Amino acid sequence: MTHSTHEQHEQAAVIGQRAAEDRTPVTVIGLGPMGAALAEAYLNQGHPTTVWNRTPGKADELVARGARRADSVTGAVTASPLIVVCLKDYPAMYGVLEQAADGALAGRTLVNHSSGTPEQAREAVGWATGRGAEYLDGAIMVPVTAVGHPDAKILYSGPRAVFDTHRTALAAMGGTTYLGAEPELAVLYNTALLGLMYATLNGFLHSAALVGTAGVKAATFAELAVDWFLPSVVNPIIVAGVPDVDRGRYPGDLGNMEMNLTAIDHVLHTSAQQGIDTDHPALLKALAERAVAAGRGGENYMAMAEVFRGRRTGGAGGG
Amino acid sequence: MTHSTHEQHEQAAVIGQRAAEDRTPVTVIGLGPMGAALAEAYLNQGHPTTVWNRTPGKADELVARGARRADSVTGAVTASPLIVVCLKDYPAMYGVLEQAADGALAGRTLVNHSSGTPEQAREAVGWATGRGAEYLDGAIMVPVTAVGHPDAKILYSGPRAVFDTHRTALAAMGGTTYLGAEPELAVLYNTALLGLMYATLNGFLHSAALVGTAGVKAATFAELAVDWFLPSVVNPIIVAGVPDVDRGRYPGDLGNMEMNLTAIDHVLHTSAQQGIDTDHPALLKALAERAVAAGRGGENYMAMAEVFRGRRTGGAGGG
Ligand SMILES: NC(=O)c1ccc[n+]([C@@H]2O[C@H](COP(=O)([O-])OP(=O)(O)OC[C@H]3O[C@@H](n4cnc5c(N)ncnc54)[C@H](OP(=O)(O)O)[C@@H]3O)[C@@H](O)[C@H]2O)c1
Ligand SMILES: NC(=O)c1ccc[n+]([C@@H]2O[C@H](COP(=O)([O-])OP(=O)(O)OC[C@H]3O[C@@H](n4cnc5c(N)ncnc54)[C@H](OP(=O)(O)O)[C@@H]3O)[C@@H](O)[C@H]2O)c1
Repeated sequence: MTHSTHEQHEQAAVIGQRAAEDRTPVTVIGLGPMGAALAEAYLNQGHPTTVWNRTPGKADELVARGARRADSVTGAVTASPLIVVCLKDYPAMYGVLEQAADGALAGRTLVNHSSGTPEQAREAVGWATGRGAEYLDGAIMVPVTAVGHPDAKILYSGPRAVFDTHRTALAAMGGTTYLGAEPELAVLYNTALLGLMYATLNGFLHSAALVGTAGVKAATFAELAVDWFLPSVVNPIIVAGVPDVDRGRYPGDLGNMEMNLTAIDHVLHTSAQQGIDTDHPALLKALAERAVAAGRGGENYMAMAEVFRGRRTGGAGGG
Repeated sequence: MTHSTHEQHEQAAVIGQRAAEDRTPVTVIGLGPMGAALAEAYLNQGHPTTVWNRTPGKADELVARGARRADSVTGAVTASPLIVVCLKDYPAMYGVLEQAADGALAGRTLVNHSSGTPEQAREAVGWATGRGAEYLDGAIMVPVTAVGHPDAKILYSGPRAVFDTHRTALAAMGGTTYLGAEPELAVLYNTALLGLMYATLNGFLHSAALVGTAGVKAATFAELAVDWFLPSVVNPIIVAGVPDVDRGRYPGDLGNMEMNLTAIDHVLHTSAQQGIDTDHPALLKALAERAVAAGRGGENYMAMAEVFRGRRTGGAGGG
């Protein structure tokens, strides 16, 4: 029994070793909470993992778990064909990578998860290309704790062929969603989804405050608002309305901006009457009024897309 | 065969008749698009249905389908123990019901689906009580086309016993959700859910405009935003956060307002850079800044509940 268990262990070790040899070596640069989670995911999946961080001590735990510590940025980038960057921002990325020796990045692929703007993502392509490197921009849409699970979506943009080459290795960090070749897509989607999140959270919290004036608990309101209303009423309204947005035509036969403006006004007045914040509904009203002023009073609510696009119609509205 | 089919028809007619006798007679007052749909639902469920509308012609189709036309408001209210009101607003309701003869409403139950404010709902209880009638306030949370289906939620508030007495009859109009005894609850929930809807729609449409600057279609964005992000990321954040709201304590160890403010600032700057509306993200930022100014920078995002409640902390923030 002891002998057989020992054999099994040896076998497992051999399998583990062979699997690790099959896996793309990866370098993770930046070991803040998110970078450390990415490096850990690579270790868990058996990738030969090299790590580097400005403050070297943050690598200790990962090294204890099998990561290789690079002593220089040159050592870090030359250790692997795939370099995952997860730093505070783009200036930090340039500050670190420009410490690498000339030519060190050539032929390698940079995958950048540092937060930035669409402009910074576009600039990074030129920067990487000038050093002979491929560049993918990534956006991690989940918290640190979810990294490494297939349902932890990470969004990517950049050349399709580069993404396809590394897709299997990228999948160690979480589910991979390819958005398109334009480098700024990951940042744009990330920003857009965050904006949607804050708008929805504010909507929920303002509404919870409103029913809270009658002593209703937020948890009780969530049962109706989150378990039923958002998925069963609001999401289908969006899905039904997106073709209008893409066509730029908003037939108002089933409900129009004027009617919605009345309802929004109602939210504003009720908020005032109940003594809670009125800034939030006042903006909803001001935006809807912009649509009406632009001659869209008879169109359906999806016409707000035109207000947000910043386009002006030939209607009554001005600059 | 012919005989047997005939017998089956007769049987069905007898069953139909017997069922109709079992069902509470209902009067529907107000035959706009929504009132007409409610009356139709009652006819479909075999309730003896009396209808009245200021403009009588709107009853014609329902009368052709089996409804009884009341020639006066007195005739309408005395025809049934249960009176469903669906008019433009509360003043319209009083304008109509005050045409009824003295005592006509005594012992009957009014269910009002006309839009109004919490104050108007509370006032209506006194008005109905003064006439010896019971009063329930209802909020129809679905479009006209969904009325009559069990998953078409209608929210009710008012005395529990009155609701229980009429629950079966109310169910003809759609799913019945009882919120509590306070008369204003239906109106408050209705207003709150609408506010949540507009906030979420604006969030989506603004974000669609943002990715739209890179040529992404709203339908493409919705696949990620609505099919995945809202249900899989945002809703769980709300559900996880409501206990904090109900406790009024917002530990910031997994993420705090300062970090969220940075992210929101990012949404604002990216919107400006991409040339789309900045009013929407500017308000997200101003509200988050109010939380920080109130000393909540180290708390998690759910602390926005306190901003919306209109409460001020003892922190740095002022009036
Ligand atoms: N945390 C999340 O939930 C999450 C989710 C999605 C996306 N992200 C993004 O992931 C990136 C990393 O986030 P994080 O949470 O790990 O923490 P972070 O505080 O945003 O970044 C910390 C990392 O950046 C490094 N750094 C900062 N300034 C530097 C500089 N001037 N030169 C060299 N290195 C510098 C830090 O090095 P030191 O250790 O030496 O300070 C550390 O490695 C960010 O862009 C963030 O927006 C994070
Ligand atoms: N439509 C929806 O999808 C929906 C959804 C949820 C809730 N609601 C609520 O349901 C109620 C009815 O809505 P609706 O869509 O049917 O149309 P509406 O235009 O809000 O109301 C039309 C009804 O109100 C009557 N009315 C208006 N002013 C009156 C007055 N001064 N005196 C007597 N009757 C008057 C109309 O009579 P005439 O025919 O004589 O003009 C008609 O019966 C509203 O409070 C609405 O907010 C509607």
